[in-house]
Amino acid sequence: MKYSKLFGKTIRDVPKDASVASHQLLLRAGFIRESTAGRYYLLPLGLRVQQKIQSIIKEELDQAGAQEMATPILHPKYLWEETNRTKAIGFELMSIKDRNDFEFVLGGTAEEMLVDLVRKFQISYKDLPFNLYQFSIKFRDELRARGGLLRLREFLMKDGYSFHISEEDFKREYQNMIDTYTKIFQRLGLKTQIVEADNGYIGGEYSHEFVVESDNGESRYFTDGEGYSAHEDVAKFSLESVGSDEAMKPLQEVEGKGIIGVEELAKFLKIPVEKTTKTILFETDTGEVVAAAVRGGFDINEEKLVKIIGCKMLKLASAEIVQSITGAKVGYAGVLNLPQEVKVYLDESTANRKNFEMGSNKTNYHTINVNFGRDLPEPEQFYDFKIAKEGFIGPNGQKLIAKKGIEVGNIFQLGFYYSAKMKGAEFTDADGKKKKYYMGCYGIGLARSLATIVEVYHDDKGIIWPEAVAPFLVHIVGLDMEAESVKDEAERVYKLLLAEGIEVLLDDRIGVSAGEKFADCDLIGIPYRVVISKKTTDKLEVKKRSEKQTAFVTFAELLKLVKG
Amino acid sequence: MKYSKLFGKTIRDVPKDASVASHQLLLRAGFIRESTAGRYYLLPLGLRVQQKIQSIIKEELDQAGAQEMATPILHPKYLWEETNRTKAIGFELMSIKDRNDFEFVLGGTAEEMLVDLVRKFQISYKDLPFNLYQFSIKFRDELRARGGLLRLREFLMKDGYSFHISEEDFKREYQNMIDTYTKIFQRLGLKTQIVEADNGYIGGEYSHEFVVESDNGESRYFTDGEGYSAHEDVAKFSLESVGSDEAMKPLQEVEGKGIIGVEELAKFLKIPVEKTTKTILFETDTGEVVAAAVRGGFDINEEKLVKIIGCKMLKLASAEIVQSITGAKVGYAGVLNLPQEVKVYLDESTANRKNFEMGSNKTNYHTINVNFGRDLPEPEQFYDFKIAKEGFIGPNGQKLIAKKGIEVGNIFQLGFYYSAKMKGAEFTDADGKKKKYYMGCYGIGLARSLATIVEVYHDDKGIIWPEAVAPFLVHIVGLDMEAESVKDEAERVYKLLLAEGIEVLLDDRIGVSAGEKFADCDLIGIPYRVVISKKTTDKLEVKKRSEKQTAFVTFAELLKLVKG
Repeated sequence: MKYSKLFGKTIRDVPKDASVASHQLLLRAGFIRESTAGRYYLLPLGLRVQQKIQSIIKEELDQAGAQEMATPILHPKYLWEETNRTKAIGFELMSIKDRNDFEFVLGGTAEEMLVDLVRKFQISYKDLPFNLYQFSIKFRDELRARGGLLRLREFLMKDGYSFHISEEDFKREYQNMIDTYTKIFQRLGLKTQIVEADNGYIGGEYSHEFVVESDNGESRYFTDGEGYSAHEDVAKFSLESVGSDEAMKPLQEVEGKGIIGVEELAKFLKIPVEKTTKTILFETDTGEVVAAAVRGGFDINEEKLVKIIGCKMLKLASAEIVQSITGAKVGYAGVLNLPQEVKVYLDESTANRKNFEMGSNKTNYHTINVNFGRDLPEPEQFYDFKIAKEGFIGPNGQKLIAKKGIEVGNIFQLGFYYSAKMKGAEFTDADGKKKKYYMGCYGIGLARSLATIVEVYHDDKGIIWPEAVAPFLVHIVGLDMEAESVKDEAERVYKLLLAEGIEVLLDDRIGVSAGEKFADCDLIGIPYRVVISKKTTDKLEVKKRSEKQTAFVTFAELLKLVKG
Repeated sequence: MKYSKLFGKTIRDVPKDASVASHQLLLRAGFIRESTAGRYYLLPLGLRVQQKIQSIIKEELDQAGAQEMATPILHPKYLWEETNRTKAIGFELMSIKDRNDFEFVLGGTAEEMLVDLVRKFQISYKDLPFNLYQFSIKFRDELRARGGLLRLREFLMKDGYSFHISEEDFKREYQNMIDTYTKIFQRLGLKTQIVEADNGYIGGEYSHEFVVESDNGESRYFTDGEGYSAHEDVAKFSLESVGSDEAMKPLQEVEGKGIIGVEELAKFLKIPVEKTTKTILFETDTGEVVAAAVRGGFDINEEKLVKIIGCKMLKLASAEIVQSITGAKVGYAGVLNLPQEVKVYLDESTANRKNFEMGSNKTNYHTINVNFGRDLPEPEQFYDFKIAKEGFIGPNGQKLIAKKGIEVGNIFQLGFYYSAKMKGAEFTDADGKKKKYYMGCYGIGLARSLATIVEVYHDDKGIIWPEAVAPFLVHIVGLDMEAESVKDEAERVYKLLLAEGIEVLLDDRIGVSAGEKFADCDLIGIPYRVVISKKTTDKLEVKKRSEKQTAFVTFAELLKLVKG
């Protein structure tokens, strides 16, 4: 490709609304342009990279036995109603009617579509297992798009769905996909952590995210440096035991005007932080008010609590509601004397304590020396809805380290989540009986992977593409191109490289300074730079984008170098 | 690929609602399944074929200097409003709002999107010309989907858009695309006619369809066997001159009860057919009633008439309207004494006649010996809205032959149609002035091309894929696979072929009869069949799907054969 003909030139200025590196660089280097928020044009350079990513994913998945196919983008809405996912919160679904008022949703994931396809066939145990995948445009009506390609509303996704006769066979495939994804991301140059995660609106019981550590990521997770990694929504950690063999003391209300924070309160009451209790009132999506309490020093993870309550959404109860229910201002809630209709959820961190503190439901008052069994009934059940924090002890006994990263892929156990809900989602087993199949699903976001590569591989001058995904392998910078002999030499080398099957971008522009050409070359980030100018002799000046030193090599040596 | 693992098996029964060959065969052979009307799943076999078609298109377009990129599927509706295409009739547009009530349309073609992209850059004459294309899912909310993949509501389309400094440069690219499309369809095994066509909702002044002759096609066109081909909406033909030197006769009303047809009327009145006149009343989309008249023996092409009137849609006026306007039942309309508000359009075929017939606007009555200048004012203008018919004389003096075909591609001159309407759709010319660019656009429907290949290449047993697009090149039919030695031999040949880079499908099923396996093999239509069974010696039995005779060859000979 000649740069003079390439559509989508570089720009020098950093775009105003682009804050993350990948967004800035992809815009400036001419890989992408925004259409509307969260929807991008991929320019020829950007599409080339995405296609390389796509090829790598396809190769590895085919190698792993998966089969590519394609579903329509418009999914009949009745399928999503069959699984009740039209009502799932967190899924930013868009729907549309055709001229006959038939309703569709714009595909976000395709579990129902795949089950609907598979049930068109009379499948038997002999047909199982299979893993079907597609590359298709997916839609998420996100509240906020951000970071260029990092969170899009419309993007190319690889989504795969596997079908099994048993959980055991599914587990084999789940491991197969873990291995395959690991290989894929390695080939893309991305070092991924496999992080336990929440299944959310996808359903099923467990899942894993493939996360690339990055400050620009939105996935917050914990690792213990010893193999345990989990998203904050599901991270497990052990509780330090709190002494519980002391004798019960008399219950007492203490005035502590305006003292709300746990640390301040503990100091004021002269008790350890773990004897304080944080009680929060929430409203559910159905308008119910619930109270949730954790031990001082912990916070509540709303995702965990939503699952425990079995509701779809939670929000903090308004000050008015808190006042009307507790009779006190915000900050003094406790579970001692709440109206009966307010359901109480106690985190396990509140258990095994003696003489603990709790809000009095009375403005400015805290009750101390509270004890289960005496002041409060011994609860039937404690729950786990605490959020992990850096320094907490993980399940392997190591301290947890907080991380941020970009989720580039995820894999889900679905189990019978879909096949149980959808009619005819079954196979005929060897015994002639119809049985529900066991499922898993597997996703990779291509545009986000592309942006993540840029997050990892760049410097202050531009992108530094890994060879496997680079839009071109060699960037010939032609200087003095107005001189016929230089132009001829540049064209000669260009054609020789092309003839060797090497992808080359030739900067053949006339009237552009050497400085500009070098700056563009660094910005675009093609792995090998070859300079051809008046000074070029029988040796070619070559430099790797990722290195500083240049070398002078023969064409044969250049070939050897770039062919690796 | 092993057939036992392949998702999507063959079925024997002809599906009830599939009437055209490609629809039946693609369903039966396991290439596609319907989701909802006009929206299909591509199963692994179907997708493989579509990908081969895609690769061929991409290769030829890249070779021709076009550059691939990608636009979002959801187009901001304001862009379509900028060109007023939201109101274009014939374009079955679907629109959708996001959570912020921002309105999008589902992309059907992407002219506005491309112009919107290009105007984000400050382009100069040095950047031009370029031809940008994409493969993307397109949506058409068709009134009726039909024929499986022949008319879809959602499908993968290659759409390209070229930008030029001048009409002259555009014409070069238009020819470049004619040549490129011709090559593409040749490689796909499709013999295409290049047919002049109407630009419709795309806009611009002229366009050409690439049509494959087929009884299952919806494109009706005419050829003269000498290089002239035109869609019925634009076909030109010469009028036989009608004697016009006779003297005017006295105007006369003749009762002809129930005589409506032109032939019958001519016989009854004892006048030549060309002296009769057919007058039809139409209602426009704005509710206006117009009258259009052609000479007996001709029919009206509504597409042509719509353009002449400058309305968006026409429908035949209802019997009630005809009665209220003409005072007569349907069949006796004429333009002699219509109310002034009814605008009259006369086809050029009605000109140059003396003493012609016309309906009297009086039930059962026809007026004869009508003459312009005496009974009717000499019209200011005659129009051409006749439809061509087989046997008419084309512009080259040859008789026209009526054809039906499938439109697999089309190319459009757009001129300034978009750049004139859209702000900033301009480039800086060498003289420093901003000028509007000249455009063209170019489309190929991939799924329709796929189905057309099947329409052309099949017999009563199944599909006969051309090698260039076949899902696999070799189909090994393994018989007696329960015998370990046969299974080993089949696997050995399978792996040897794979190692040679040949795509192979191995029917490894156990418990399926030889007859069934051969029938499946013929149905799926892979170019080369290799049978491996207990009888296999050192020679392999090979047969081309397109031929009857089998041959026994060594592996080396087989390789030579399939590698062509």
